[in-house]
Amino acid sequence: MRLNKGLVFMSDTRTNAGVDDISQVRKMRSWHVPGERVITLMSAGNLATTQAVVSLLDERTKAPEERHPSILAAPSMFAVATIVGETLRNIVMRHNDEGQSAADSLFRASLIVGGQIKGAEPRLFLIYPEGNFIEAGEDNPFFQIGETKYGRPIIVRSYDPAMSFEDSVKLLCVSFDSTIRANAGVDLPIDLKIHERDDFTTVRERRFERNDPYFESVANGWAEALGIALAELPDFHF
Amino acid sequence: MRLNKGLVFMSDTRTNAGVDDISQVRKMRSWHVPGERVITLMSAGNLATTQAVVSLLDERTKAPEERHPSILAAPSMFAVATIVGETLRNIVMRHNDEGQSAADSLFRASLIVGGQIKGAEPRLFLIYPEGNFIEAGEDNPFFQIGETKYGRPIIVRSYDPAMSFEDSVKLLCVSFDSTIRANAGVDLPIDLKIHERDDFTTVRERRFERNDPYFESVANGWAEALGIALAELPDFHF
Repeated sequence: MRLNKGLVFMSDTRTNAGVDDISQVRKMRSWHVPGERVITLMSAGNLATTQAVVSLLDERTKAPEERHPSILAAPSMFAVATIVGETLRNIVMRHNDEGQSAADSLFRASLIVGGQIKGAEPRLFLIYPEGNFIEAGEDNPFFQIGETKYGRPIIVRSYDPAMSFEDSVKLLCVSFDSTIRANAGVDLPIDLKIHERDDFTTVRERRFERNDPYFESVANGWAEALGIALAELPDFHF
Repeated sequence: MRLNKGLVFMSDTRTNAGVDDISQVRKMRSWHVPGERVITLMSAGNLATTQAVVSLLDERTKAPEERHPSILAAPSMFAVATIVGETLRNIVMRHNDEGQSAADSLFRASLIVGGQIKGAEPRLFLIYPEGNFIEAGEDNPFFQIGETKYGRPIIVRSYDPAMSFEDSVKLLCVSFDSTIRANAGVDLPIDLKIHERDDFTTVRERRFERNDPYFESVANGWAEALGIALAELPDFHF
């Protein structure tokens, strides 16, 4: 999510190969050059694909002079998104059936990448399995990947670019709570990361574990508030 | 939706063959034998398929002694669901590519059928393109077809089998409002039908037109109430 104050990322940790094969895995990864750039990547889709993308991006950052292209050497966030997109597409296509497009592949995945490089604005991108991407802007200030529908209405209704990071976390917890209640493929723990605009030294992060007291207070409070709100709406009469 | 008091049906009227080809069509159809039975059918999916299903069911009701099987002569709601399911499957398969299953067909559709026959309980069924079906019960008291996700969380949270018809209409309006805001393929007018348990003479119905004052008051009231509810949730602190 893009705010005036910076970028907010939230991802769950549930992954599955069918409802009888469920595991926990972190879907958020950050790269950080203190004082110069901060980049966060979130993934949805085939886990082998997304882990391969992260590993490849990671390897190339370790000896930047030898392993190009590196997202830590890219001159802009647009260049970072291009590198990430090409890496994703290459991995999806390598495992593809012949004649199949990247979007139809069993190995497809989608990514959200965002961050800021000193001297430029914070930018946020949604990357498709084909490797192309779109950027968040004033009219589309947030992206979702994976199970996007259950949690979308409350964000659409309540997003405000001027909101505080604290309020955005509350909003995203409500959104994730709706999704978790509806889809067994999404669950706590949830990872949170915040890039404050022009702050290249500290990345605030937090994991909400199962039974996290704050997340529970939001989930319970929201359930109760919705019941009250519904009761207070004008009654229908035939 | 199955309530202690009877059955509640709600459907929108938007149909499309791509975002550049949008029309309005009623997706709800009822059959009524005063004093004996009342049946309501709702449809989602390929419009040619669902209209053919309704036309076939309808034709067979016109001279029941000649045109079997008729849903007006079926001895139970289970038999009604079986007839509707077989009609649906036959139409989907007739237009199918060879070797394709009904669920994979471009011409697939899903149906919800419910009603009551004198001497038996009200019953509600969800019918798949293959013609098989499941029945609503205490653990799964409502069905959705078409765009099911955006509007689901509020129903899951607030459904109560003991609720009044009036409260169920309010709840369904909130659910449809969330869906309409998120998916351009769903829109007003919305049709409502209510079967009161053991009442075989009156079927209450109502169409909520665009700019319907009640629907607007619910939509606006809900947007406002959610904003207040969110603000009142406990604040997050790092």
